[in-house]
Amino acid sequence: MLNSLRWMNDQRSPGEGVFWRVTMRTVEWNYDNHHLRMIDQRLLPGEFRLVEYAHYTQVAGAIRDMVVRGAPAIGATAAFGLALAAFDSPAKDAATLRNDLERAAEVLQAARPTAVNLSWALQRILTLSAGSPGSAEELRAAVLQEAQRIADEDVAINKRMASHGTQFIQDGDTIIHHCNTGALATVDWGTALGVIRMAHEQGKRVHVLVDETRPRLQGARLTAWELEQYRIPYEIISDNAAGFFLRSGQVQKVFFGGDRMAANGDVANKIGTYMLALAAWDNSVPAYTVVPTSTVDLSLQHGGLIPIEERDPQEVLALEVNGYPIAPEGAHARNPAFDVTPSRLLTAIITENGVVYPPYETNLPKVVKGF
Amino acid sequence: MLNSLRWMNDQRSPGEGVFWRVTMRTVEWNYDNHHLRMIDQRLLPGEFRLVEYAHYTQVAGAIRDMVVRGAPAIGATAAFGLALAAFDSPAKDAATLRNDLERAAEVLQAARPTAVNLSWALQRILTLSAGSPGSAEELRAAVLQEAQRIADEDVAINKRMASHGTQFIQDGDTIIHHCNTGALATVDWGTALGVIRMAHEQGKRVHVLVDETRPRLQGARLTAWELEQYRIPYEIISDNAAGFFLRSGQVQKVFFGGDRMAANGDVANKIGTYMLALAAWDNSVPAYTVVPTSTVDLSLQHGGLIPIEERDPQEVLALEVNGYPIAPEGAHARNPAFDVTPSRLLTAIITENGVVYPPYETNLPKVVKGF
Repeated sequence: MLNSLRWMNDQRSPGEGVFWRVTMRTVEWNYDNHHLRMIDQRLLPGEFRLVEYAHYTQVAGAIRDMVVRGAPAIGATAAFGLALAAFDSPAKDAATLRNDLERAAEVLQAARPTAVNLSWALQRILTLSAGSPGSAEELRAAVLQEAQRIADEDVAINKRMASHGTQFIQDGDTIIHHCNTGALATVDWGTALGVIRMAHEQGKRVHVLVDETRPRLQGARLTAWELEQYRIPYEIISDNAAGFFLRSGQVQKVFFGGDRMAANGDVANKIGTYMLALAAWDNSVPAYTVVPTSTVDLSLQHGGLIPIEERDPQEVLALEVNGYPIAPEGAHARNPAFDVTPSRLLTAIITENGVVYPPYETNLPKVVKGF
Repeated sequence: MLNSLRWMNDQRSPGEGVFWRVTMRTVEWNYDNHHLRMIDQRLLPGEFRLVEYAHYTQVAGAIRDMVVRGAPAIGATAAFGLALAAFDSPAKDAATLRNDLERAAEVLQAARPTAVNLSWALQRILTLSAGSPGSAEELRAAVLQEAQRIADEDVAINKRMASHGTQFIQDGDTIIHHCNTGALATVDWGTALGVIRMAHEQGKRVHVLVDETRPRLQGARLTAWELEQYRIPYEIISDNAAGFFLRSGQVQKVFFGGDRMAANGDVANKIGTYMLALAAWDNSVPAYTVVPTSTVDLSLQHGGLIPIEERDPQEVLALEVNGYPIAPEGAHARNPAFDVTPSRLLTAIITENGVVYPPYETNLPKVVKGF
């Protein structure tokens, strides 16, 4: 099942003109050797390389270094990381194994602070572990099974969000999309980009303006790469050009994902989302966020309580143009990885349980809890 | 005079640890050989290289290719370009020379469409030419003299704007600045950055968050380089991070320049200015534009009438990270070079004739006309 054809398009091997098929999920368990396999997203689109990890500490490093990124993909990766920890632990009894899993969860949790799916997935495994009555060996199998379930559910959830979301896309729409929220940001299919992809598969003609998404350029590198595969027309723009296209009436919709959403709908997402949503609002262009309910943190009343990760300033400075570095030697930089978009700027929140409209304070908790 | 010390700071020669002095204006006439000399800004901060042009067509190319950029610097460059055309013309009589100047002005005018200083400077030379009674040789000398006057006036105007503007900067302010509006964007001193520079020289402690300013990165490349020279503390940020710093209360002021301003105060400036000004407005942070009155085009009622230059998409795609291109081979892009910030988002407009407050429709024309 895991090696079945999931990416339905051909992908050209760079520079060779040969077609080959991407036949894997972004993150998947290798049942042959009990390793975790994923696409090294730092190298795309220049190189398509798979990496395999045998130890959970490597997985924590991969999350921190953004070999894998995207809130849902990070959640599944962390769950599989605990499965690696379970298989790697020498524990002979379930109680010792439970302790080892808790220690591993702390290491994985520390890898990225903003996305809540990470702690959500870890907590789900730990809760299962706490309630597992059997032997260490049974617990190991149960942990892997639960991680696999999280991964499989992610794909199903993404498709449900997409089917809820396509109603907002009309034939002929030009859509601004921020960061990467496609198959690469999830286990497969995607969140916000998954909605656009399903609209395309329904035969709606869509055109995507791809925010390049500084500083890590997930839009230019990953979203453009995915859109090439899906044969969806697109153009890459500087993030700061979104306002020009919105003000000049060239854009009908704005779509993005989310890394953590507070109970009132305020959403932490990739840096730049706030300015994009604000420019959409200023021009009466609808802005939609597409998030699984696992992204919603009902314990936080508003977005000001979400911790914002600041990453290495070198991510801002490590660009070159024609071989020249873009900043003077020794230049200083700041690098907040996320910002919070207040929910007043959101037209609707699309989840797997349905679409949420304002007032979010009352409607969002209901949809998250499923009633 | 022209080779006197104008940049008051030392500049370290890259990689060598040797100090040397930048002793020239951004754009200046070489009276030894009647060539136009400027700093090749495409190579900064990696390399400090001077270029000299003998023909106005080279100058048009230099404006188009952004060897020189910044509305005031472009204006002075175009004026000197007409001086080159005058000296290069074989015309024996003033009437023939006038025709040659008009043809040259058309070529120079076509180099960049948005900045109005370009046509303002050309028109000023052509008006002088039309009213010049003497010989071809006298006209040549008059054209050069007028171009030199435009350049000298630019420096004086910048210092007047700075002295009007420093009242808005308090000791301890953190200021977001977009693009480059310093000495490199003008003949010398700068517009918006000139205000910050004068506040610093007055002893106010300022900290600048430098928008890197995609796609050409004038902030990371040029503004950071200038701030290093002035010893003003700064940090480079992704353009899309400005909203994070504004929303989290870390910014007291926003400053930028302008390339063309309509009669109602709407201002076309480097792409990204609109989203920055909007985010400042959304967080009640004052936003100031610093423009010489030559930037104001009273013939345009509002900003929607300003032509917006779209440049080569390769400017968006030509980035590398660790030697990898940032976009898939054959990727498409759009590259609008400017956007229009509606004047409702501006706290004040700072000109050499004084500060303009709303309502701009009535106050701006008065200040431009000097009464």
